[in-house]
Amino acid sequence: MQINFDRLKNDIEELGRIGRDPKGGVTRPSFSKADLEARAWLKEKIREAGLVYRVDGAGNIFGRLGECQGKTVMVGSHIDTVINGGMFDGSIGVLSGLECLRRILEEGYRLAKPVELASFTDEEGNLVGDFLGSRAFVGELNKDLLEKGLTSFGHPLKEILAGTEFTTESILEARKTAPEIEAYLELHIEQGPILETEDVPIGIVDLITGKHYRWCSFIGSASHSGTTPLELRQDAFLGLADFALKSTQYVATKYYGSMVTIGKVNVSPGAFSVVPGQADFSFEFRSGSKETMRSLESALFSLADDIASTRGLTFVSKIIDQTEPVKIPERLIKLLQEECRKLGHPFMPVTSGAGHDAQILASKTDVAMIFIPSPDGISHSPRETIRWEDLEKGANLLLQALLRLAS
Amino acid sequence: MQINFDRLKNDIEELGRIGRDPKGGVTRPSFSKADLEARAWLKEKIREAGLVYRVDGAGNIFGRLGECQGKTVMVGSHIDTVINGGMFDGSIGVLSGLECLRRILEEGYRLAKPVELASFTDEEGNLVGDFLGSRAFVGELNKDLLEKGLTSFGHPLKEILAGTEFTTESILEARKTAPEIEAYLELHIEQGPILETEDVPIGIVDLITGKHYRWCSFIGSASHSGTTPLELRQDAFLGLADFALKSTQYVATKYYGSMVTIGKVNVSPGAFSVVPGQADFSFEFRSGSKETMRSLESALFSLADDIASTRGLTFVSKIIDQTEPVKIPERLIKLLQEECRKLGHPFMPVTSGAGHDAQILASKTDVAMIFIPSPDGISHSPRETIRWEDLEKGANLLLQALLRLAS
Repeated sequence: MQINFDRLKNDIEELGRIGRDPKGGVTRPSFSKADLEARAWLKEKIREAGLVYRVDGAGNIFGRLGECQGKTVMVGSHIDTVINGGMFDGSIGVLSGLECLRRILEEGYRLAKPVELASFTDEEGNLVGDFLGSRAFVGELNKDLLEKGLTSFGHPLKEILAGTEFTTESILEARKTAPEIEAYLELHIEQGPILETEDVPIGIVDLITGKHYRWCSFIGSASHSGTTPLELRQDAFLGLADFALKSTQYVATKYYGSMVTIGKVNVSPGAFSVVPGQADFSFEFRSGSKETMRSLESALFSLADDIASTRGLTFVSKIIDQTEPVKIPERLIKLLQEECRKLGHPFMPVTSGAGHDAQILASKTDVAMIFIPSPDGISHSPRETIRWEDLEKGANLLLQALLRLAS
Repeated sequence: MQINFDRLKNDIEELGRIGRDPKGGVTRPSFSKADLEARAWLKEKIREAGLVYRVDGAGNIFGRLGECQGKTVMVGSHIDTVINGGMFDGSIGVLSGLECLRRILEEGYRLAKPVELASFTDEEGNLVGDFLGSRAFVGELNKDLLEKGLTSFGHPLKEILAGTEFTTESILEARKTAPEIEAYLELHIEQGPILETEDVPIGIVDLITGKHYRWCSFIGSASHSGTTPLELRQDAFLGLADFALKSTQYVATKYYGSMVTIGKVNVSPGAFSVVPGQADFSFEFRSGSKETMRSLESALFSLADDIASTRGLTFVSKIIDQTEPVKIPERLIKLLQEECRKLGHPFMPVTSGAGHDAQILASKTDVAMIFIPSPDGISHSPRETIRWEDLEKGANLLLQALLRLAS
């Protein structure tokens, strides 16, 4: 049995036209007008395929195959995007899953276990924190965050939900309708350069790194830049500059392979002639092991405190989000390797530096991921793309893995 | 002859109530509603005093005393403020000047030369560049800047002027109505901590430092923070961090007494999980000598280019504004010292790190400045204040200096 590649390609192109942004790429954050249109489109596709459509209280969309008993084998990803994102991130996972289930139905193949397609709400974290949908699904959401959280555009979540059939209560109830799961499979673009550099079409993920997000501030004292001698300044921005360089140097030398990033910066008051009194910034680090995550947390924030005290500043920070690293179970890695060998496709182990819904589902079941190459490593960008022949290989591997797990 | 201190204090308090900001301090940028109210208030005060009121095409307000021939002795400052600024910066210079002329009139004192009070438009640079009014007065304004320039709030200057009796043409014509000037005197708060630290009520300025403003960018490549290894990143923000620390270190060690400041920073795209592709920032340096200004310009931007090339980034910059350092003429310093001795007030020489209208007028005439202490060195802040007894001393010195120059 093989997927119908032309149909899959056509689906991806159709979905990719929903939410086209005049500024480039696709802009389809969860519960935006474009996302609601994409949801209606997906619902129709699930019904056309003959799968049982269901949506839970968090807006996660499901398409179920099989009346049989037992734990469910789940396949999925997400259809929301970042602002000016690409049309492949997430979508190829959902639509390859749909194609697999469609083929199984068409072939009349009898499975021993139920199989379900899942499309999770807001993987990209445009609402409140990343992975709202999959977190609701596994019951890991905090009521306070839902009630008080602001979306990345600064609106209360409730305001966004008002335009939908969902409420903070229904999101918290979503976990009650989740089936017991045998395993979760997700096909995704790599979003990094390794597979392309190695010229290998399939990556079998062995590890998804954990991440730690904080919103931090160095606080000093604003003063007139013409009259405050350099040695008397409490320049909050220089504190941040020092921390940016030293934290990067520290991770690069002591924890090679881990990541540290300052992506967002606000300096205030923010004028030519005023020494910055405050520098607010996002601080993120990622690593593949829980122990390293703990060590980094302790070392990096001690470093920030030291810099603050040396420079006469104050350092404060608030945890925004964190996810633990996930090791993919050996049995699923082996299964994917075996099926990939049977198909005759080259493959290699890869670590996922990006987070995925699979990481959240790992608290509930065994998960595995298949990556296909991202040309130039580009993702979250209008320039994100794939090679279609890689997708065909990845989707056929997904189909074979599903058949093995559900048989 | 002495100033009427109670009347001066009352004027300062009255003007200080115009443009009170609920967020603290005074917000009275030029041509704002509050500034228009303050202008009407000042016009009335000038007329009440019996001075000849005049406004030029740039909105500079004058109050003239004396029908006599010869070059004008001018005294002035500005009444506009920064956002959430203090009520003393600028205002005490204008209102002390007003008080001096009022006293001369009241005493029926016969002067040999005309004396004129000046209140210059937009010293604080909320419109297009600093010192719009005094630059128009000396004929140093660029038509292009007026036509295309955006205000610090992002509006075209023309939009702001639409609410006034002034136009870009009238601003360019202002220089034609400027009288020939014998000397320009300005009383101002120090905006720095030196006089208070030394416990001296009067500073006689010997030098106004020059400044150089650029808007700069390090440009790298935005990428996913989870999948782009540290050693493969072109992180524009780390380029800026490196430049901030090294440029500060360079100035502090090689040009002690000069200043360098990064006050405004925009990092884009600006998200937790995206390595910054671009870091835009304001870069300012100040120094007391023209030669040092040239050396700093060459050394600092070479440093920026070196950092960019080491880090795989591009560095670009655009000059926004520059003013040359001004040495106060010996004859005016001596005159102020002599009058201060006669009054029996302690004084000391000070350098002005901040820019002033006096600096602009220096291209047209001899200028001098009197500083009074700024408690805690605070200015451009709701916490800006003065000690009233210092002001009384400074205003009386201003009066004596005016009498000497105009006699």
